Amino acid sequence: MKKKAVVLLSGGLDSTTVLAYAIDKGFAPHAISFAYGQRHAIEIENAKQVAKHYKIKDHRIINIDLRQFGGSALTDNIEVPKNTGIENGDEDARDNIPVTYVPARNTIFLAYALGLAETIGAFDIFVGVNALDYSGYPDCRPNYITTFEKLANLATAAAVEGRGVFTIHAPLITLSKANIIRLGKSLGVDYSITHSCYDPTPDGKACGKCDSCKLRLKGFAEAGYNDPLPYVNSV
Amino acid sequence: MKKKAVVLLSGGLDSTTVLAYAIDKGFAPHAISFAYGQRHAIEIENAKQVAKHYKIKDHRIINIDLRQFGGSALTDNIEVPKNTGIENGDEDARDNIPVTYVPARNTIFLAYALGLAETIGAFDIFVGVNALDYSGYPDCRPNYITTFEKLANLATAAAVEGRGVFTIHAPLITLSKANIIRLGKSLGVDYSITHSCYDPTPDGKACGKCDSCKLRLKGFAEAGYNDPLPYVNSV
Repeated sequence: MKKKAVVLLSGGLDSTTVLAYAIDKGFAPHAISFAYGQRHAIEIENAKQVAKHYKIKDHRIINIDLRQFGGSALTDNIEVPKNTGIENGDEDARDNIPVTYVPARNTIFLAYALGLAETIGAFDIFVGVNALDYSGYPDCRPNYITTFEKLANLATAAAVEGRGVFTIHAPLITLSKANIIRLGKSLGVDYSITHSCYDPTPDGKACGKCDSCKLRLKGFAEAGYNDPLPYVNSV
Repeated sequence: MKKKAVVLLSGGLDSTTVLAYAIDKGFAPHAISFAYGQRHAIEIENAKQVAKHYKIKDHRIINIDLRQFGGSALTDNIEVPKNTGIENGDEDARDNIPVTYVPARNTIFLAYALGLAETIGAFDIFVGVNALDYSGYPDCRPNYITTFEKLANLATAAAVEGRGVFTIHAPLITLSKANIIRLGKSLGVDYSITHSCYDPTPDGKACGKCDSCKLRLKGFAEAGYNDPLPYVNSV
């Protein structure tokens, strides 16, 4: 029987690549997605489509309302920044944590993933965080992930009672976006079903101008592939 | 101006004592409670009552549905154990993590508290976990709390950008229930507005038989006070 794993799945480029990676490594993935009042609610539809594509039988969609907290352009009425130059290594874009940062988001997401893992008897959690081509989020760095792993092994009955040891797999954490896309392509990922834009149009077109779009487009260009997504106008 | 703090408030004996403690230490507390599909939903009403008593202006009640996960007597259709002998240090009760354990619960709660703290600009989080008279929960131990504190300082823009250092205060962690009650009494806590039972009657009477009731009753007896709560029959 295959080893169960929990995969955090947003339906974006990174998490879809991670899902394909976990399957390739021989795991039986259970997917978990979060409806957290984000602007880009289309994410959830993409996550469902990706889960269906990979025939994931257990896909939990957790409703959490981070809008109660506010403080982020992704959940609040703060404008999503456009054309910051992040894809060119622009100093200002890199030195500051952007307004799209959501307080404690990955900690909340990983905590739920841990709860699900413990409930289903899994000890492997896969997450598509990335510290390199990221957007300056502190909770995407290697030290953060290893510390959460340590926490997981202290927090849970499953670990404390010796039934297993939790591993947080973050296989993309040091990859460039181009190399993530190359990895995904080698695993047969269909990127037309993934979505990355922070501020898509109501009919699902990517804006092409937010940090997420810019990094994605640059990654495809560097990897030598066309991005199959529809974008607003030409970008 | 007083320093802001986030206090995890269930409305039970421990968290109410912690709230009084935080106020006594000069903090301006913001309270956070969780409606997590628990059997003892009356908790939320108690939390509201306690928050009102202490004139807390900002009390967030976060709806999270841990029933999606199952696996605990507190959220699932598993019977709450009665008369386990935990209050007498019964070996079986102490060596096993009880079925009332909720997978990753404190990690999820602390993650939300961290998100709220970062949003409001607080760096102090108070939580009423207890490792001594507890009920065998792994996420109530000192090492767990210090590891979460480390995580908090890696996870957040507020810490990474140097605006402050997060402290997780767990002032009850090594106290016996009797000493928690003595502490609360010295701070003027009115324990008639707190509630601890895992399986109360619909009209709000405590069962007197679950681990939580047994530990509470023993604590009051040892501290030399009467528990002002109504219990089912005489217990």
